Amino acid sequence: MTHRNLDNQSAAVAVLGLGPMGRALAAASLAAGHPTLLWNRSPGKATALVAQGAVLAPTVADAARRASVVIACVINYRAVRAVMSGLERSPRGTFVNLSSGHAAEARDMAAWAAQRGVNYLDGAILTPAPTIGTPAATILYSGPRALFDDSLPWLESFGGSSVHLGADAGTAAAYEMALLDLFTMSVGGLAHAFALAITEGIPPTAFARFARGIGGLLPDMADRFADQLTSGTFAADVSTIASAGSAVAHVRDAAAARGVDPAPLQAVQSIIERAVAAGHGGDSYARLAQSLVPADLAEAAR
Amino acid sequence: MTHRNLDNQSAAVAVLGLGPMGRALAAASLAAGHPTLLWNRSPGKATALVAQGAVLAPTVADAARRASVVIACVINYRAVRAVMSGLERSPRGTFVNLSSGHAAEARDMAAWAAQRGVNYLDGAILTPAPTIGTPAATILYSGPRALFDDSLPWLESFGGSSVHLGADAGTAAAYEMALLDLFTMSVGGLAHAFALAITEGIPPTAFARFARGIGGLLPDMADRFADQLTSGTFAADVSTIASAGSAVAHVRDAAAARGVDPAPLQAVQSIIERAVAAGHGGDSYARLAQSLVPADLAEAAR
Ligand SMILES: NC(=O)c1ccc[n+]([C@@H]2O[C@H](COP(=O)([O-])OP(=O)(O)OC[C@H]3O[C@@H](n4cnc5c(N)ncnc54)[C@H](OP(=O)(O)O)[C@@H]3O)[C@@H](O)[C@H]2O)c1
Ligand SMILES: NC(=O)c1ccc[n+]([C@@H]2O[C@H](COP(=O)([O-])OP(=O)(O)OC[C@H]3O[C@@H](n4cnc5c(N)ncnc54)[C@H](OP(=O)(O)O)[C@@H]3O)[C@@H](O)[C@H]2O)c1
Repeated sequence: MTHRNLDNQSAAVAVLGLGPMGRALAAASLAAGHPTLLWNRSPGKATALVAQGAVLAPTVADAARRASVVIACVINYRAVRAVMSGLERSPRGTFVNLSSGHAAEARDMAAWAAQRGVNYLDGAILTPAPTIGTPAATILYSGPRALFDDSLPWLESFGGSSVHLGADAGTAAAYEMALLDLFTMSVGGLAHAFALAITEGIPPTAFARFARGIGGLLPDMADRFADQLTSGTFAADVSTIASAGSAVAHVRDAAAARGVDPAPLQAVQSIIERAVAAGHGGDSYARLAQSLVPADLAEAAR
Repeated sequence: MTHRNLDNQSAAVAVLGLGPMGRALAAASLAAGHPTLLWNRSPGKATALVAQGAVLAPTVADAARRASVVIACVINYRAVRAVMSGLERSPRGTFVNLSSGHAAEARDMAAWAAQRGVNYLDGAILTPAPTIGTPAATILYSGPRALFDDSLPWLESFGGSSVHLGADAGTAAAYEMALLDLFTMSVGGLAHAFALAITEGIPPTAFARFARGIGGLLPDMADRFADQLTSGTFAADVSTIASAGSAVAHVRDAAAARGVDPAPLQAVQSIIERAVAAGHGGDSYARLAQSLVPADLAEAAR
């Protein structure tokens, strides 16, 4: 292990956690010219970055002591807690947790950090490791605005957009979960649709030509959902929930007939059936979102 | 009912079925200057189109007798069969069925039509009624190429792209089902994600900003799926099925904790788990599609 003189690294970044994402963050920080300190539970993963000029610290405390911004990027909040227990009380730098988790975990972590005198920002990385350091990266942050502003000169080296969403530490994680929901369902839908196409003898490339078009409808549909959910009016200009219901039933049966697991379509169909049973069959798709929100929360949101 | 002299309507279009889509097709045909004959089970729906110059025929046979192209656009194939039984044997015009259904139904209908001497084309309309007659319309056709070519001068009045997919009458319906699969899952995902966002206190408009970005990933992802499914190689350049699995489990738990029905995410999670159990955890998402195809069909596709 190389331990260069760290004492003059007072404007440094520390990156704790060297999985694919931690390594990408450290590389981007180095590329931006920031002195970069590293720590990982298993130290072997630092080798390539050390060759590029990063400095491996023997302990979390040692890495953090010298850094203005301490990035944690490990597998989950349990690991974040393990990492954070290695900090000295009231470290100088801001601790920026970019590991994935739930909003409640982020809020708990912020409270725990406050008890230990740690300046805590939470964040969520929306784009995969190869985007880090490029314009395609998107990272969301939440927590005290001043901490974000002060850390931005370092955070910007990760590329793309760095967006501060508000003072509640849980907000970035909340966005991440809801966006992962959309991403997962979209990928699941793509996989399911290609499978059905293949069982029908449609060449994947021919199918992709039209699948692109369907995918391309989503961005504008997201805006229409937002407008209607905000106004609370669900006029069906084009298609109704009831007509979607009969289409989904068709597709589910076609999938079952072809031996392609119909469960994802059945789950969507059940949501539609409940909305129709609640009297929303003539409304637009956006009403489906509202009908999924538990009644007490829907009340509170008004 | 107005029955103008139909005898000189030899280059006419007949539209059978006047639901929202049938009315849109008839209006586009009129707008393109084609003599347009109408028939609907319940004749009242023709009034506005007759005021615009269409001619209501008293029977299916009467409408079809005078038309070069006979469009059927009714609720399902059972209704198509009811409509087609009203035709005389070996009518002059080509019968173009634009009603939704399964590929097998389309093939059965083509066989039945052949027995009755009916020239039969099947089709599937991919875009909603308001797009008809505009560049945004997309209609797929399958069946004998010569019938498509001969009918195109009339079909083109419906706007946008008219795409012939092959001689098998079932192909257009097969595409429609697989594309509806993707559409349904995407709309379901959007609804689910907005619901989760709302339960987390995220304003829908703020959420839409990022949901747009996720939606925008789908078109290119469709191409990547096609390339990998065609080559049969599933290198995970960015994300693996296993990492998607742990993300989905997170989101499913977050949804359950918030009282948002976790079933759609659980269904996707089950697909992922089966792919991981089959040893594909390190592969790209496209492998999920292949893993959904029943083994005998996957064999046959090779
Ligand atoms: N990779 C991406 O494209 C991507 C995209 C968006 C978000 N993220 C998020 O970024 C975070 C890191 O992801 P990743 O892809 O780099 O890899 P990962 O597999 O999620 O995490 C690996 C890292 O976590 C560390 N770790 C695990 N358990 C630990 C513990 N108990 N104590 C201390 N460290 C522990 C590992 O240390 P060892 O090396 O010692 O095992 C390693 O540094 C995750 O929360 C992920 O969801 C990743
Ligand atoms: N609307 C769209 O945006 C859209 C988009 C893509 C595809 N499509 C497809 O286009 C087709 C027509 O859709 P639509 O929206 O116009 O309305 P629809 O509600 O699907 O169908 C209504 C039409 O079907 C007729 N019909 C029902 N049962 C019948 C029977 N047993 N015999 C004869 N006619 C019968 C109705 O006649 P009556 O008036 O007498 O009841 C009416 O003309 C459907 O297959 C639909 O999936 C529609």
